Amino acid sequence: MKSKEKLSAAFEKNLHVCIGLDTDINKIPQFLKSEKSPIAVFNKMIIENTYEHAAAYKINFAFYEQEGAKGFELLEETRKFIPENVFSIADAKRGDIGNTSEMYAKAIFDLLDFDSITLHPYMGYDSLSPFISYEDRLCFVLALTSNKGAIDFEKLELANGKLLYQEVIEKVRLWNTNKNLGLVFGATKLEELKENIGRFDELPILLPGVGAQGGSLEDVVSAFHKARNNRFLINISRGLIYVDSSNEFISKVKNLLDSFNKTIETINNC
Amino acid sequence: MKSKEKLSAAFEKNLHVCIGLDTDINKIPQFLKSEKSPIAVFNKMIIENTYEHAAAYKINFAFYEQEGAKGFELLEETRKFIPENVFSIADAKRGDIGNTSEMYAKAIFDLLDFDSITLHPYMGYDSLSPFISYEDRLCFVLALTSNKGAIDFEKLELANGKLLYQEVIEKVRLWNTNKNLGLVFGATKLEELKENIGRFDELPILLPGVGAQGGSLEDVVSAFHKARNNRFLINISRGLIYVDSSNEFISKVKNLLDSFNKTIETINNC
Repeated sequence: MKSKEKLSAAFEKNLHVCIGLDTDINKIPQFLKSEKSPIAVFNKMIIENTYEHAAAYKINFAFYEQEGAKGFELLEETRKFIPENVFSIADAKRGDIGNTSEMYAKAIFDLLDFDSITLHPYMGYDSLSPFISYEDRLCFVLALTSNKGAIDFEKLELANGKLLYQEVIEKVRLWNTNKNLGLVFGATKLEELKENIGRFDELPILLPGVGAQGGSLEDVVSAFHKARNNRFLINISRGLIYVDSSNEFISKVKNLLDSFNKTIETINNC
Repeated sequence: MKSKEKLSAAFEKNLHVCIGLDTDINKIPQFLKSEKSPIAVFNKMIIENTYEHAAAYKINFAFYEQEGAKGFELLEETRKFIPENVFSIADAKRGDIGNTSEMYAKAIFDLLDFDSITLHPYMGYDSLSPFISYEDRLCFVLALTSNKGAIDFEKLELANGKLLYQEVIEKVRLWNTNKNLGLVFGATKLEELKENIGRFDELPILLPGVGAQGGSLEDVVSAFHKARNNRFLINISRGLIYVDSSNEFISKVKNLLDSFNKTIETINNC
């Protein structure tokens, strides 16, 4: 199944929750810590018990890289737990000169076989093109991010009257000849989301920031519903995978995911 | 020896060449390929034979990451080849929300023990601060990069009349309370370098783009000399480490490095 088809299939089933595997050894349930590889066991349990009700999984590279080579192995292992027909996102935020981006693209798409990656726009088109040239994979380019620092550069006004992140949206639309680009847009930036939602066209949108960062699932879903746009993924990491730390954490995660999905369905049926 | 002191010591010795270890199995001398770990042997030979005449080493993460966990091990190994008193740069171009940047900072500074890292400014201050808070390490923030795509966003004019990369320079200066920030500025952008060199103050500048990308060592050194600024590192990767592919490649690398150093000395003694 091709990456684009996996994503479309999720949207057709009204699935929009992307589960962020920001797995932290200090936050997983105590009883798993006696396992030989606690993080692998945790990730496997989360994926096996949620994949039928999740739109995607996003792996945050930092959480694995901090363990060095061992962490990279864990990342490779976790990637393999994600079923073939479920969309995967390498949250690696890459972006470099051409020959370097090419190497990163090989790592993410060939070696690790991710369906998509997150990318920094700062260095411009030729820093993104080695990723874009994998026509059957997707690239989510940072537009307006969920953090406070978004104000420092992303929201600067340009001489042409647009804000920098709006220029990013515009250029990403122009560069989308392979129909494999998307955007990252912070769920914490609701006003800006409503203002710009009409500019997204068919670009899939990845929205981090619901949960620990304060974004509201309901608000985001309502905004997309109102705009008659269903091409969005709401990422939830800490707010979902660490909802409980008892031996029964999995049932709590499943219940919470179900409640998210019901909320989405209810709004979309309005 | 502290990171800042290593860098200052290099500048005092008139050393400004940073050797970029963009090591590619397809480009190293044939005779090394029978080694068990050809890339490690190549990197070790380069470092052992140049460290007294190099200002720094820059490791490009992409070239290692493409090999997965094995590549990460190679990166860790290569880092250890760099002598304690020589400045090291993790060319990883990171930048993410706070808790994620924290993990990356741990990986780069605690686990791998690099003296410095390259960072994407796009997401703003709180994406950089977990790195900046390592007061005794350095952070090189991308300003104007050496690639063509620099025109897409970095050179956009802002409503305040500045170009985006100039706003980055300005903010990096403001944020430099720990005196551990620097900038990345493409050696291929000579006119802009001359125009902006007066704004760098005491920020150390990392300049990629000499050699394969077309930047000129002489022009860059002359520009800094004219500005009476000696806080710069000129990175040379492909143009130095692959200068020869015979069994005598090391002597060719050493000779070329010597000639770079002589050029720098000549200009600085003018």
